[in-house]
Amino acid sequence: MRIGIIGAGQLGQMLALAGYPLGLDFEFVDASTDTPAGRVAPVLTGDINDPALLRRLARRSDVVSFDWENVAVSALARATRGRHVFPPLRALAAAQDRLAEKRTFERLGIATTRFAAIETRTQLERATARVGLPGVLKTRRLGYDGKGQYLLRSAHDIDGAWATLGGTALLYEEFVPFDYEVSIIGARARDGTVAIYPLNRNYHSGGILRLTLAPWPQPRVARAAAASLRRLLQALHYVGVLTLELFVHRGRLLANEMAPRVHNSGHWTIEGAVTSQFENHLRAICGLPLGATTARGHAAMINLIGSLPPAATLLAEPGLHWHDYGKQPRPGRKLGHCTLIESSAQRRTARARKLLTKLCPQLSLRP
Amino acid sequence: MRIGIIGAGQLGQMLALAGYPLGLDFEFVDASTDTPAGRVAPVLTGDINDPALLRRLARRSDVVSFDWENVAVSALARATRGRHVFPPLRALAAAQDRLAEKRTFERLGIATTRFAAIETRTQLERATARVGLPGVLKTRRLGYDGKGQYLLRSAHDIDGAWATLGGTALLYEEFVPFDYEVSIIGARARDGTVAIYPLNRNYHSGGILRLTLAPWPQPRVARAAAASLRRLLQALHYVGVLTLELFVHRGRLLANEMAPRVHNSGHWTIEGAVTSQFENHLRAICGLPLGATTARGHAAMINLIGSLPPAATLLAEPGLHWHDYGKQPRPGRKLGHCTLIESSAQRRTARARKLLTKLCPQLSLRP
Repeated sequence: MRIGIIGAGQLGQMLALAGYPLGLDFEFVDASTDTPAGRVAPVLTGDINDPALLRRLARRSDVVSFDWENVAVSALARATRGRHVFPPLRALAAAQDRLAEKRTFERLGIATTRFAAIETRTQLERATARVGLPGVLKTRRLGYDGKGQYLLRSAHDIDGAWATLGGTALLYEEFVPFDYEVSIIGARARDGTVAIYPLNRNYHSGGILRLTLAPWPQPRVARAAAASLRRLLQALHYVGVLTLELFVHRGRLLANEMAPRVHNSGHWTIEGAVTSQFENHLRAICGLPLGATTARGHAAMINLIGSLPPAATLLAEPGLHWHDYGKQPRPGRKLGHCTLIESSAQRRTARARKLLTKLCPQLSLRP
Repeated sequence: MRIGIIGAGQLGQMLALAGYPLGLDFEFVDASTDTPAGRVAPVLTGDINDPALLRRLARRSDVVSFDWENVAVSALARATRGRHVFPPLRALAAAQDRLAEKRTFERLGIATTRFAAIETRTQLERATARVGLPGVLKTRRLGYDGKGQYLLRSAHDIDGAWATLGGTALLYEEFVPFDYEVSIIGARARDGTVAIYPLNRNYHSGGILRLTLAPWPQPRVARAAAASLRRLLQALHYVGVLTLELFVHRGRLLANEMAPRVHNSGHWTIEGAVTSQFENHLRAICGLPLGATTARGHAAMINLIGSLPPAATLLAEPGLHWHDYGKQPRPGRKLGHCTLIESSAQRRTARARKLLTKLCPQLSLRP
């Protein structure tokens, strides 16, 4: 079976590496062959929103999927008519637009931060009054890793926020001084079976994920997060892996956003779960039974961003699993990740903090 | 770093899949691109003993290795002069010739079956008297999976054995009614560090490995096997992964043969050890530190030979890890393997037997 994947980044690379042992073959589309997935599979190059290119990929593939959720849904829908495309385009559309996403959460009774859709400066002024301050103004589309966001601390920030982001479709959201961030990842098979991974606790710096600890040992939080994810998977008639990011605020969960794909906070599943998120995404979209999502030990995943230590330094660390995406170093760029598995949550957390200090000494984690 | 590998079979495929996350790139040489490794990396096609082809591979590679040990050593030595080739060609030469192999065992005080080199029929007659009967006549070169062997039960079989194998360089070996077969796999780094995996117990049928259980819980046997392997790794100034197959006969170990490469009986290390044999081979040949060889749980590896059940049947088996090499089915051909990890040796063995009965109902295992 041949899988066509739109976007040839590290997620695509890890999908291919998980899929080859299942007997699957891969082809990607991206702007260049010099991409992480291009190291391990053929790439059709061009504009990833070009209908002709997408049609070519679809014709050559048994199933089409994506490693990047900002592909144009309408072009993709036309190019893949009558073909298997998973996750479903309806879910992709909901995840691309922060407003549609928020409304999906509301409709399903999944608690989320208060928000307002913003198209004019007047709407923004009213929203700061109604939703409250501080708040965050965000573009409805194409935001990731903290890009396209503006924090408003007081009414004085309205000018700056509007000057920076005004003119595109926006969302104004209440700022929640949350206690910490978690994410939950699950897969839904074509037959409706659902499998959900243990809870991830995520630590960011500069808007970028730096560290994930999983399973995060908060059974009540994990159960609530899993229930919300399950509701989303079912309501969206989802097929594939879906990620839900949430804030924990005074013991309460608030859905932040969803990603209709495998997720950075699930990279630990390669070594730390019976079946990785990558394999389960492929099993789901190919109509195969899902694999067990049970954890194997206690994992810590550290992102390596901007620059890399020598491989020999990393690999001298006992039990460290290293994943080099093969990208050129550049400030703020995710170049790879490493995963540790320990026999207890305490040892895992202690070791992760020590390793983080060694690998990224200037890093300050939030919260 | 680019690794050039001679032979593009499933071992090469699994090497590439283990090496991409380390940031390594791969190129293979083989007779065809329609090979397991050809699914995941570029292949230079041609005769793998062609010096010009080998030179081309060597020029394009930082390190040269092989997934098949029957490459012509002299051609390879000439083609790779001044380049890194690991494992060392001296070890490759010793492993290619059953006589050199036996003499290496003897020289290092590693117990092995009694044997005699045979070039004439008269020598065979004398050997059956001196070494004893029953015995096995084997070609000194190019034997694998029980091919190129003739069992002599009595002097009446000399005619048949000579008619079948006479004319090439041969070895006559005492037949040992061993209790069971084990193998031990280890890696030696460029700096001399050695890391050895837990012991494998291997079950064959029709001369082909069908099932491996690891770690095999016989600490005394494991220690003795590891000591022999360590002696070989050091004496051969070995770099990379080396496998030693042994018979257990009345509680005593007898070295059977060595393979200068990753080995089918070590496939369980992908999910069942902290670092797989494939990753450790690459770490060793690239001058990187070795990874931990500790087992994660109790593994059973089953080879799927000749034909495959549907992927959905295999993947419905809880916790089963499936590896499809992507080869055309053919009787006696290794098409893939699957690995189970259980929490105890007892559960592992019980589950492996059950699964084996389900997947290969006609199979009878020896011993």
